[in-house]
Amino acid sequence: MEKSTPIGLVAGFVLIFGTIFIGDGAMTFFDPKSLAIVWGGTVAGLLVTFTVDEVKGSIAMLKDFFKFEAPDYPALASQIGDLARTARRDGPLALDQRLHEAEDPALRSALEMVVDGASPERAEESLDTQSMEMTRPMVLLVKLLNKAGMYAPAFGMVGTLIGLIQMLQNLSDPSAIGPAMAVAMITTFWGALLANLIFLPMAGKVQGQVQAMMKAHDMVRVGALGILTGEAPNVIDQQLRLYVSGEDVTDPAPLRKVA
Amino acid sequence: MEKSTPIGLVAGFVLIFGTIFIGDGAMTFFDPKSLAIVWGGTVAGLLVTFTVDEVKGSIAMLKDFFKFEAPDYPALASQIGDLARTARRDGPLALDQRLHEAEDPALRSALEMVVDGASPERAEESLDTQSMEMTRPMVLLVKLLNKAGMYAPAFGMVGTLIGLIQMLQNLSDPSAIGPAMAVAMITTFWGALLANLIFLPMAGKVQGQVQAMMKAHDMVRVGALGILTGEAPNVIDQQLRLYVSGEDVTDPAPLRKVA
Amino acid sequence: MEKSTPIGLVAGFVLIFGTIFIGDGAMTFFDPKSLAIVWGGTVAGLLVTFTVDEVKGSIAMLKDFFKFEAPDYPALASQIGDLARTARRDGPLALDQRLHEAEDPALRSALEMVVDGASPERAEESLDTQSMEMTRPMVLLVKLLNKAGMYAPAFGMVGTLIGLIQMLQNLSDPSAIGPAMAVAMITTFWGALLANLIFLPMAGKVQGQVQAMMKAHDMVRVGALGILTGEAPNVIDQQLRLYVSGEDVTDPAPLRKVA
Amino acid sequence: MEKSTPIGLVAGFVLIFGTIFIGDGAMTFFDPKSLAIVWGGTVAGLLVTFTVDEVKGSIAMLKDFFKFEAPDYPALASQIGDLARTARRDGPLALDQRLHEAEDPALRSALEMVVDGASPERAEESLDTQSMEMTRPMVLLVKLLNKAGMYAPAFGMVGTLIGLIQMLQNLSDPSAIGPAMAVAMITTFWGALLANLIFLPMAGKVQGQVQAMMKAHDMVRVGALGILTGEAPNVIDQQLRLYVSGEDVTDPAPLRKVA
Amino acid sequence: MEKSTPIGLVAGFVLIFGTIFIGDGAMTFFDPKSLAIVWGGTVAGLLVTFTVDEVKGSIAMLKDFFKFEAPDYPALASQIGDLARTARRDGPLALDQRLHEAEDPALRSALEMVVDGASPERAEESLDTQSMEMTRPMVLLVKLLNKAGMYAPAFGMVGTLIGLIQMLQNLSDPSAIGPAMAVAMITTFWGALLANLIFLPMAGKVQGQVQAMMKAHDMVRVGALGILTGEAPNVIDQQLRLYVSGEDVTDPAPLRKVA
Repeated sequence: MEKSTPIGLVAGFVLIFGTIFIGDGAMTFFDPKSLAIVWGGTVAGLLVTFTVDEVKGSIAMLKDFFKFEAPDYPALASQIGDLARTARRDGPLALDQRLHEAEDPALRSALEMVVDGASPERAEESLDTQSMEMTRPMVLLVKLLNKAGMYAPAFGMVGTLIGLIQMLQNLSDPSAIGPAMAVAMITTFWGALLANLIFLPMAGKVQGQVQAMMKAHDMVRVGALGILTGEAPNVIDQQLRLYVSGEDVTDPAPLRKVA
Repeated sequence: MEKSTPIGLVAGFVLIFGTIFIGDGAMTFFDPKSLAIVWGGTVAGLLVTFTVDEVKGSIAMLKDFFKFEAPDYPALASQIGDLARTARRDGPLALDQRLHEAEDPALRSALEMVVDGASPERAEESLDTQSMEMTRPMVLLVKLLNKAGMYAPAFGMVGTLIGLIQMLQNLSDPSAIGPAMAVAMITTFWGALLANLIFLPMAGKVQGQVQAMMKAHDMVRVGALGILTGEAPNVIDQQLRLYVSGEDVTDPAPLRKVA
Repeated sequence: MEKSTPIGLVAGFVLIFGTIFIGDGAMTFFDPKSLAIVWGGTVAGLLVTFTVDEVKGSIAMLKDFFKFEAPDYPALASQIGDLARTARRDGPLALDQRLHEAEDPALRSALEMVVDGASPERAEESLDTQSMEMTRPMVLLVKLLNKAGMYAPAFGMVGTLIGLIQMLQNLSDPSAIGPAMAVAMITTFWGALLANLIFLPMAGKVQGQVQAMMKAHDMVRVGALGILTGEAPNVIDQQLRLYVSGEDVTDPAPLRKVA
Repeated sequence: MEKSTPIGLVAGFVLIFGTIFIGDGAMTFFDPKSLAIVWGGTVAGLLVTFTVDEVKGSIAMLKDFFKFEAPDYPALASQIGDLARTARRDGPLALDQRLHEAEDPALRSALEMVVDGASPERAEESLDTQSMEMTRPMVLLVKLLNKAGMYAPAFGMVGTLIGLIQMLQNLSDPSAIGPAMAVAMITTFWGALLANLIFLPMAGKVQGQVQAMMKAHDMVRVGALGILTGEAPNVIDQQLRLYVSGEDVTDPAPLRKVA
Repeated sequence: MEKSTPIGLVAGFVLIFGTIFIGDGAMTFFDPKSLAIVWGGTVAGLLVTFTVDEVKGSIAMLKDFFKFEAPDYPALASQIGDLARTARRDGPLALDQRLHEAEDPALRSALEMVVDGASPERAEESLDTQSMEMTRPMVLLVKLLNKAGMYAPAFGMVGTLIGLIQMLQNLSDPSAIGPAMAVAMITTFWGALLANLIFLPMAGKVQGQVQAMMKAHDMVRVGALGILTGEAPNVIDQQLRLYVSGEDVTDPAPLRKVA
């Protein structure tokens, strides 16, 4: 379970709205018309940018996002090394009986290619295609979140312009100017907040998940091509160890699923 | 038929102008001079940027844009697999009689290359050229929409500057300042709205259509090169299946035309 | 003759200054000091960015810009196909007597390589170098126009800051504030107008011209390498037809010169 | 020890806060609510963007950042040349006894590949993987600092909007407007200062450290591949000398550790 | 001698400060505290971004910047052609006695490789490394100037925020507001001016110098590889002529040094 996203979101909102509720007039910030312009404008912009299926797919993807667990690179490396030793000892076809062990879909698919006796060139091409297709929905989600992070402040500005234009046409009551400007600025506030606390940071996190998956795919490729070209298992081990040496700063916890 | 574009456009405009008509002075937003500066300036900028033929071609392209249907990747995959089996059984020349089945122009052109017995290298080069030329008018439309999304806010700002400069020269009547500023800001409002609800989102959608076409072209290439190099049909099938495995999140509906 | 550039420029200026002259105080917009800061600052910035020769060369290049005619791709394709047939029938040396037919310098130079019997590898490398050198002055012009489009608004802002700072030091006469601010904002107006109506759009157009030339160079390359590797003329024809198939949306008019 | 970072940070803060303390009301700049919004918002944004482990790892990385010493390229070149001569004279296995001399982990790992008799292709691939994995935590730190440099001004703006909205709702006491606006602007001040004095400059420095490491990795690669392909030691020397010729402007001091 | 840089700088400063001195209160623009914040902040930012040695090296590099002369491509082409004829007639070793003729370090180093009988592959790799290392200090200077062009406006804004915050805390004397705001805006003025008249334009010019050097390096590479692969001198001549054909718009003057 991805924990830093809910922590960051809760901390950010508590901080911002804590500050707001300490001051006066906190409820103004929840002006329904302002929220409608920013959220509605952003959703409208996204619908023009993406197809209905892409939007639906990305929303479904969000569930996976919170359940995403970074690949356990050391476990993956030792599993691949073990499979390479089996292939060396009993021939590539022996891997057929160990397919079920590979929980990771990228690894299983690569093993099937090995069992089928694909040529190394074709296997490499197929693994590239597979990696691209497996990450495609996540790459789409990154794109959608980045666009949302662009439209939210834009419609925040549109809302503020509407409020200012309406206010400026009717300056007869000076005491109404301040509150009217306050309301006008609320859309800009929400646009900036949604973009910088939700949309852009989450785009960054999904991008990081894509990169984690691609690192695992790289390891799978090294293993599959090594077996197909008859590389010695300990050479494959050495190559895989390069991916997990160092303090492995970013991913120490033992995790399971790769993709 | 592309449905999310009209949905998004209608939803966005209803939302924005609904908000405006709830307030006072809604008609000010349709100030003809302001609309003329933003639309006229954007069109003038586009005419300097593109040739008359490019602008005309892009407008014609817009029709196709709304009729665009995402390729039906699974159907395309099974069609290519089927053609590969024909080629294997009856020789590549047998594809000549099935050319009419290929509705998709990229697929038909690739089959012609196979029938003509092109070398794999030359076929690959030709398929690249063809893919680039087929998507060229759409890529041009993306460029034009992105430029429009840049010029609209710029001429919005130019219009606001003109209004402010004229107002500032004549501050004798304080009661006129507010309405004059309101009018000045309307060009900025339209520039931001057109860019973020129409031009930039539509550029994003056409870009997505280009990528959908290029994915189909990739599948056609895999099939054509597989047949030309004498690959077994089930190996070609396997490779094509990589493009449609997964939930195929973004494109589940059965659609027909590829390009 | 490039027609959309003058059309766009005239339409844009008529629109903007029409709007200005309908209002009061139109002559303020032609404040000589403001024009001097924006134009002078932009030229100074360009002189620091480019060498004297580059600036001179780019100004000379502007003449060609207006005379630029997009290559007539279908005519080029049929001319190359014809030359390929000559080479096939009478040997590559026979092209020597048809060199004068090639008005396009890129094509003539490619034919000379064929007559000289260059190896395909060397010919490909030379054609790349040639294409890069032929487009180099235009690429430089694109860069210069883009920089002008960056400096003009920047010096517009510098001018506005100067005006505001001078005005703020002397607020004793309230009636002078408005006009002083108006004058201060004129540099920002000019910076935005010049950048978005002249500099950036023209940079976009020259960029399009570079791409048109490079498409023609690609066709020349296909022909020259086809002849050098002894490709059958009808195969060369097929490959060239890929460049001109489709509605050829962007370039239907019959034009002559390629580069 | 990296000296210019503390010098620059101290100089920048002394300058900015010196200027502030010369004026009145310096303590306003340390408004705790403002500091909380900018720092808290930035940290919240980073937590949504990165995983807990990535944030922890990057903080740990900061220690290494200050201890980083640029590789001593001339010493590295002569060390590699010396090892190449040993390999030439006594065979690659003789390097086994000199492994301990290689303090630099990239060099040691490359020597191990040579001793193991890896093929040049596999060694090249492994060295690429190794270089990418060795610099990965630093590349992550660059990304994190750049994001911090983006979130800090964004939350500075959010804070200012909150302050302005609260102030505008209550304009009854004109004498309170000035101080309230002053406080509102303090978050913008801190956002701009943190981004431009700390986050973005430090991202630039770590990026420079990554490039320095990659230059050293390039030199190691030249040496390792040279030994594996049986290149003459003086040819390897010549190639390495290309990396250290010139005035070696950026790194004259004799330093030791490479990575 | 690079003439357009001093011309542009002098013209720009005369223009801007001429305009300022025509108006009132010109001396305000030289407010020492404002200059200290912009220059000091920029230098502090650069010190955090670069190492002490990089900053020193870049300052030293500035001297070369003003003395830079664009390579004389036609002279270089004929010199290389001449050397190729010598190599053809008397063997590559004969070039040893003509090494002293090559003033250009890149050319001399390439000739040494030819005399040493390097393999074409190794020579190509070495020439790439050499080109990268020769231009490295200039590429660093481009980076430093671009960063300065980013920090100057940022610290200009920081200075303006400090001035406004201090002013807003003390609005008791209305007549002091104008001058205080004027002083606050001076840092923004200097930030914009330094960035757009000095830092960014100079970065552009050094970038152009890097490209000029790399074009010369490309010509040297063509010559060296031609000699090493035994190409006929007139074929080498033809290839080099491609680099100097056309009007050679950007560099007509006869100059000498290449790098």
